[in-house]
Amino acid sequence: MSDFLFGLLIRFPGIIGFISRITWVRRLISDFYINKIAYSAPPRPRPFSMASSYTTWQSLTDRRFTGRHLPEAEPNDNLPSADKVVDLWRRKENIEIPSSNTSLLFAFFAQWFTDSFLRTNLLDRRKNTSNHEIDLCQIYGLREELTDILRLKEGGKLKYQLIDGEVYPPYLFDVEKTTRENWVFAEPAFENLHPRYALEFIFNDVPEERLKRMFAVGLEHGNSAIGYSILNTIMLREHNRICDLLTAAYPEWDDERLFQTARNTMIVLLIKVVLQDYIRQFSGIGFTLDPTPGMAEKQNWYRTNWIALEFNLLYRWHSLVPEHFAVGDKRYALDEFRSNPPLVTEYGLGPLITAASKQKAGRIGLHNTHRFFFEPFPLGDDKRSVMARTVDMARQAKLRSFNDYREAFSMPRLNSFEELTDDTDLQQELKQLYNGNIDDLEWHVGIFAEKPDASFMLGRLMARMVGYDAFTHALTNPLMSVHIQNQNTFSKVGLSVIDATGGLADIVKRNVKDPDNVIASFQYIE
Amino acid sequence: MSDFLFGLLIRFPGIIGFISRITWVRRLISDFYINKIAYSAPPRPRPFSMASSYTTWQSLTDRRFTGRHLPEAEPNDNLPSADKVVDLWRRKENIEIPSSNTSLLFAFFAQWFTDSFLRTNLLDRRKNTSNHEIDLCQIYGLREELTDILRLKEGGKLKYQLIDGEVYPPYLFDVEKTTRENWVFAEPAFENLHPRYALEFIFNDVPEERLKRMFAVGLEHGNSAIGYSILNTIMLREHNRICDLLTAAYPEWDDERLFQTARNTMIVLLIKVVLQDYIRQFSGIGFTLDPTPGMAEKQNWYRTNWIALEFNLLYRWHSLVPEHFAVGDKRYALDEFRSNPPLVTEYGLGPLITAASKQKAGRIGLHNTHRFFFEPFPLGDDKRSVMARTVDMARQAKLRSFNDYREAFSMPRLNSFEELTDDTDLQQELKQLYNGNIDDLEWHVGIFAEKPDASFMLGRLMARMVGYDAFTHALTNPLMSVHIQNQNTFSKVGLSVIDATGGLADIVKRNVKDPDNVIASFQYIE
Repeated sequence: MSDFLFGLLIRFPGIIGFISRITWVRRLISDFYINKIAYSAPPRPRPFSMASSYTTWQSLTDRRFTGRHLPEAEPNDNLPSADKVVDLWRRKENIEIPSSNTSLLFAFFAQWFTDSFLRTNLLDRRKNTSNHEIDLCQIYGLREELTDILRLKEGGKLKYQLIDGEVYPPYLFDVEKTTRENWVFAEPAFENLHPRYALEFIFNDVPEERLKRMFAVGLEHGNSAIGYSILNTIMLREHNRICDLLTAAYPEWDDERLFQTARNTMIVLLIKVVLQDYIRQFSGIGFTLDPTPGMAEKQNWYRTNWIALEFNLLYRWHSLVPEHFAVGDKRYALDEFRSNPPLVTEYGLGPLITAASKQKAGRIGLHNTHRFFFEPFPLGDDKRSVMARTVDMARQAKLRSFNDYREAFSMPRLNSFEELTDDTDLQQELKQLYNGNIDDLEWHVGIFAEKPDASFMLGRLMARMVGYDAFTHALTNPLMSVHIQNQNTFSKVGLSVIDATGGLADIVKRNVKDPDNVIASFQYIE
Repeated sequence: MSDFLFGLLIRFPGIIGFISRITWVRRLISDFYINKIAYSAPPRPRPFSMASSYTTWQSLTDRRFTGRHLPEAEPNDNLPSADKVVDLWRRKENIEIPSSNTSLLFAFFAQWFTDSFLRTNLLDRRKNTSNHEIDLCQIYGLREELTDILRLKEGGKLKYQLIDGEVYPPYLFDVEKTTRENWVFAEPAFENLHPRYALEFIFNDVPEERLKRMFAVGLEHGNSAIGYSILNTIMLREHNRICDLLTAAYPEWDDERLFQTARNTMIVLLIKVVLQDYIRQFSGIGFTLDPTPGMAEKQNWYRTNWIALEFNLLYRWHSLVPEHFAVGDKRYALDEFRSNPPLVTEYGLGPLITAASKQKAGRIGLHNTHRFFFEPFPLGDDKRSVMARTVDMARQAKLRSFNDYREAFSMPRLNSFEELTDDTDLQQELKQLYNGNIDDLEWHVGIFAEKPDASFMLGRLMARMVGYDAFTHALTNPLMSVHIQNQNTFSKVGLSVIDATGGLADIVKRNVKDPDNVIASFQYIE
């Protein structure tokens, strides 16, 4: 019965979308859908992490080591060379395969959102520098002492600057005095925002004119893509806007109380966008998830979050990145729309968001990744490309096979490459690489090769695993608890902002010039 | 019905003890008893911590700030002066009131056990330095880099020394060269084991002959009571003994694997002692708790632990400390059996443990605390007594009233001091202090004043709250999970050690000379 309902859900999103207009029906289906996925693998605690290949007290408790869903695989001598595996992601002749209906704004959001908690420790790739929570560290920083540097300490606001009358984050550097060789921070405290080595890695290939105008934000790579700069700015504006509302309603509150209440509200706004807007787009279930309040806390999967290596690797949706970003008549190549905050101030947020909503992102899958990711991308002494590092990370971690993961997530093992994908060229290619043995297929290849269910944009196992990690992540956020989610936590004003927010578009339109002419959509708009 | 069963449980421990000899009955009753208590207050996440008086992201996530069960109380101008409240704990004429059947060994264990996770940050009392887990940091240290210093790096063992042919922890200092003024650490690395300021606080009043012979153990105050030294030594011996068993069974294992497997086993041994031996003594439920495996993980209270300030304060069972510790014909005053490791090596463990089993601890309650706790006990600039600091901590935290806590833990509010205690002198004393208003009674006073149920040794609210924190603490330890508790984690040898351990006596007898003549009992033995 339950599998039948699940089948209906993913095959007939239109029908489900229609009947889910009734609140109790929508909640019933939401609860069912979430639990179906969140119970597909056992709940935490997991016996293993990247700390060791057997269970130790550290592997059970030290979240500085990245988690893992399954134990290490036995060595397999039949695997193809790493180089050949890397090549599986290459775009053929640099021609992108567009997604069916996913906008570039979705791609911007996905990267900005996930890079806040999928944070590999660049000095030791078994470790992470993640807070393991959805906490908007993109604008608040990773720790309280960093938040402190970013706060204006007036009216609860974050520091900001005005450019052409619009609010942006402050510049990290003194624009006048900074050169590529000599960084002069705009404020002495900004020097402590990010580890120096991380900035040196990231700013390695950035031209001086752009480098000087990097924004001071929560994360070290917070300027590396135009999407970061756009979304950081939108969220900063929304935070400060909420502070103004709170100040008007509660004139007796001090800066601290205003800041904390705005932050509580902002984090829930983000989670709402993720659950109602973002997941809707990539799952294609055709209706807005609306779980019964308090449902999550009653489940066995309600556990303190611990980011798994598999979550980190499966989310490498580089295929979303197009060859060009078209704004009006202009077409910007990747090198022009990454690490380029001045582009944001040049156009302003509205036109860029609209342009990103009216362009398709690339389709997530093999043979659809921009050549940039195959070029050397030095991080200190490590000169390899992004894709080479990714494939190496999966292998170093001794991940189990694609079929083992299917089984672990309650899906039948596949018997052939024909069951994996309908793309006969890809079938042939993979058969050749893996000697025709589907059980040898590596997990990180399989999840990108597998065909999606019906209206989904992700392969079946990837969809299952993203769902597992996303639901058990977002719904266990402490601010989502029924014991916390009330007027004491958000204030009446905060609650009304939350109620008035159904998706990213609402936040965008509250914070751009000429909002009626701005389109903000994760679904591609022609 | 469930309240009826709960009533039976606590009123007729003998009958329950008898019928619980059948495994499924025992598990049914254990599950029922644990859940009755663990569901008496809502599960985490808690909206508040000591980080702020309203809900902030930090108060929801930063466990460096101590948790709290209830929000702050409104100011109450009717409270008695702190000095008068402190006096409520004083022994009358230094005469102790003995417990009915609790041994001094129980007192030693309670202090040693709870001080490993109830760790107030001495520099900021809103904070803690706790790992929030039962992790045997008493012998392993609080962090991996400290564990590293304590490890022998051979055969999985911890560093040790032999004195009269018996195993003890190594000395912290070079015995020959160390004076009160000039500390010379036995190994350079030992200097990093504990913060210097903490050692200076703790060794403040320790004579040189004792100071030189402090043991190098996991916690800074690991030598402050003779019970610490005894239990640290027993646990060190058991760890190293298990390593020998593992080495014999798995000769191919390296030091790391031996150490980690012994540690996994040791932590579960400790939790087993707590659930089956220690809780049995203080709850008086008359049978050994034996919850159904996997039961805890299905409950809404299965949450990552966060030590609450109330847990820290209610566990200040200083009344257990007697006026003297009698060993053979000798009677040691408190100053002689605290901060005195040489006493342990002089007698050896067996005679001290037997002596502690054959002496009653003090009864937990008001007017039964040794004068030591009222004398100045300087921690740096803070010259107050232990009791003055305790009462002040409760007040600074603006804890709600005794009746508010009763209500929060699903117990009816009391209407009078007569309902609180049968001790008419105490009724009078408290009525006078609190102007006859039971609703003004402070929580930290009330829990020590309240009469126990039937065979319990703790007042009713204290028993409820200790149970709540103890069960949700011990049973959520990752090593207790059914997904973890298996041969992979402990090895066959580790599992058999766990199976062979029913209580502290088993561990003791495996690690002392002449075990047949050693008594190790939490219940007083005549």
